Amino acid sequence: MNRREIALQKLKGLGEMIIEDVTKDKVPRIRVPSRSTSNIIYDDKKRHYILGEKYGIRSMGNVKQIKKIAQMLYIANFCKDLVKRNKTATLRELYYVSEGWDVDFADQQESNIIGEDLEVTLGMTREDLGLLPEEDGAAVYGELTVREGDIEINALKAGKSGYTIPPTIDEVEFVDHDVERVIAVETMGMYHRLVQEKAYKKFDSLIVGLKGQAARATRRFLKRVNEELNLPIYICNDGDPWGFHIAMVIISGSAKLAHVNHELATPDAKFLGVTATDIINYDLPTDPLKDIDILRLKELLRDPRYKDDFWKREIKKMLKIGKKAEQQSFSKYGLEYVVDTYLPEKLDEIET
Amino acid sequence: MNRREIALQKLKGLGEMIIEDVTKDKVPRIRVPSRSTSNIIYDDKKRHYILGEKYGIRSMGNVKQIKKIAQMLYIANFCKDLVKRNKTATLRELYYVSEGWDVDFADQQESNIIGEDLEVTLGMTREDLGLLPEEDGAAVYGELTVREGDIEINALKAGKSGYTIPPTIDEVEFVDHDVERVIAVETMGMYHRLVQEKAYKKFDSLIVGLKGQAARATRRFLKRVNEELNLPIYICNDGDPWGFHIAMVIISGSAKLAHVNHELATPDAKFLGVTATDIINYDLPTDPLKDIDILRLKELLRDPRYKDDFWKREIKKMLKIGKKAEQQSFSKYGLEYVVDTYLPEKLDEIET
Repeated sequence: MNRREIALQKLKGLGEMIIEDVTKDKVPRIRVPSRSTSNIIYDDKKRHYILGEKYGIRSMGNVKQIKKIAQMLYIANFCKDLVKRNKTATLRELYYVSEGWDVDFADQQESNIIGEDLEVTLGMTREDLGLLPEEDGAAVYGELTVREGDIEINALKAGKSGYTIPPTIDEVEFVDHDVERVIAVETMGMYHRLVQEKAYKKFDSLIVGLKGQAARATRRFLKRVNEELNLPIYICNDGDPWGFHIAMVIISGSAKLAHVNHELATPDAKFLGVTATDIINYDLPTDPLKDIDILRLKELLRDPRYKDDFWKREIKKMLKIGKKAEQQSFSKYGLEYVVDTYLPEKLDEIET
Repeated sequence: MNRREIALQKLKGLGEMIIEDVTKDKVPRIRVPSRSTSNIIYDDKKRHYILGEKYGIRSMGNVKQIKKIAQMLYIANFCKDLVKRNKTATLRELYYVSEGWDVDFADQQESNIIGEDLEVTLGMTREDLGLLPEEDGAAVYGELTVREGDIEINALKAGKSGYTIPPTIDEVEFVDHDVERVIAVETMGMYHRLVQEKAYKKFDSLIVGLKGQAARATRRFLKRVNEELNLPIYICNDGDPWGFHIAMVIISGSAKLAHVNHELATPDAKFLGVTATDIINYDLPTDPLKDIDILRLKELLRDPRYKDDFWKREIKKMLKIGKKAEQQSFSKYGLEYVVDTYLPEKLDEIET
């Protein structure tokens, strides 16, 4: 069974369970795993946040919960229709569609939350249920051929701005590739630098332009590339707490998405730089840490995802030197320096 | 001569002029058109803002101006090198590269401004000089084939997320197309809706996903498609002052970029909706106008770009009904409604 068929079966199953209860004169109930902070646990073995064992029961016998159950069933029915017809909708569209239903939502916030309840109840991502984020994913450049439906796309022939990872990434099939690693960078400025300097050829690499915080589709793409194609993932971001965390969310997922981290996190992905050590070794142009950077770095020190020696050392070093540096600051030594000198040295270090 | 050759000649010319002055014992001067508000004029005939006749003289004889001239010549020299080697750099990279020069910049703000001075002095866009924005342009889907270097890309075969307009749009060649119009939409949610409902086929159209405020590359693309391929451009945004203005910047350019509007503005592009009239006629789900929306609508009423009867009427009507609506709100009538009903009716109205 493919993901679509599983989703359809689970959605149908939810409805059938309710109907069975009603037929047998039992009060229908739905068991919804809890997403409260107390049920979000960092799993050392899986190396990402997961949901614990707590759950709540929504019962039709409880007047307060009837509306919530009705909302969930309406959304489930809408999703069943989407999946059946092989369509998708944004969360915003779902909210507007609900204007025509017999049950209403106060605002989009409310329909989003019930959508997440459904996700966690069924143990599927909302993308599987046909509910897509608005945002597109990252730009990909390099020798990778994918199939979307009956279209094959070579990420070396989609133009300089590359192949864009669609929100429907799980329907994308990896057809062929001729690369040995993936280099993901935070900014499109750096992405275009790497494409222009032919880093994809030089390092037998896919170049991925994250466009800041990685979209869900991007994280799913990186995880699939890592697991299905056995390619190592290296992340090169700005050398500041925000660049660190963009990498960490790719590596170990977020607490908020504890229920889907097993689909999104890539624990084997590695942070290549810019590290505090790089700032010193390469004598990079820097800016002083702001109060908010310092606060954030101290938060990271207490975050279970950053407990490796590597992270502890680099965060402390950054606090000590009191400086941060952007990835584009390598241009101080010329536009080509990052590809001719920095990346070869760092890749050599990380791969041996 | 292509744009690159012209840029190279102009950059060289600037240097030669200085050398000539020095050789003849004259004080070198550069004439820089003024970009102050008093020199930004709305041109009724061209239907966009242009720069007026005012200019300033930067003279090496003026101690205060020596640094500015030196900065401009360093940037010009850097650009000459870029253009010569067929390379590009971001404004951020330029700033970091300048760390290795004998003349410095206080911050990136300063190097950006001198970059704009150079742009306006030479009468070329900064893209022509090899200085690219970080941001990529819009997503394009539909029967259009373009050439980037020796790669041909068909925008129907680049994946669901489409062909991404690169910052180097002026080097993109239009090879072939089989469409009769362009429909540009504000959100990627609506873009994916139109792709999913096959609006590109139904309306013989390119679908362009603007991703909010249109990037310079997107505006240049739309202008080129309009002028070179003779395709009408229709813009469909949220029905609020921000959606109006995203359309207007495509149509009539911005005041800030008065010196390059002739390369970016598409005065014949048309705003299709969502209009205040649409909100009433289609009985759309709305939100009340906030104070800041009302303020902005009143500003637009005083803006010379909005002086058409159409805009005056729609802005006043929106102020009267006190409501705004998003483009995705058509989903109230089902996901397909926007493609099956709204767009056909509006296209019919605007094209006859």
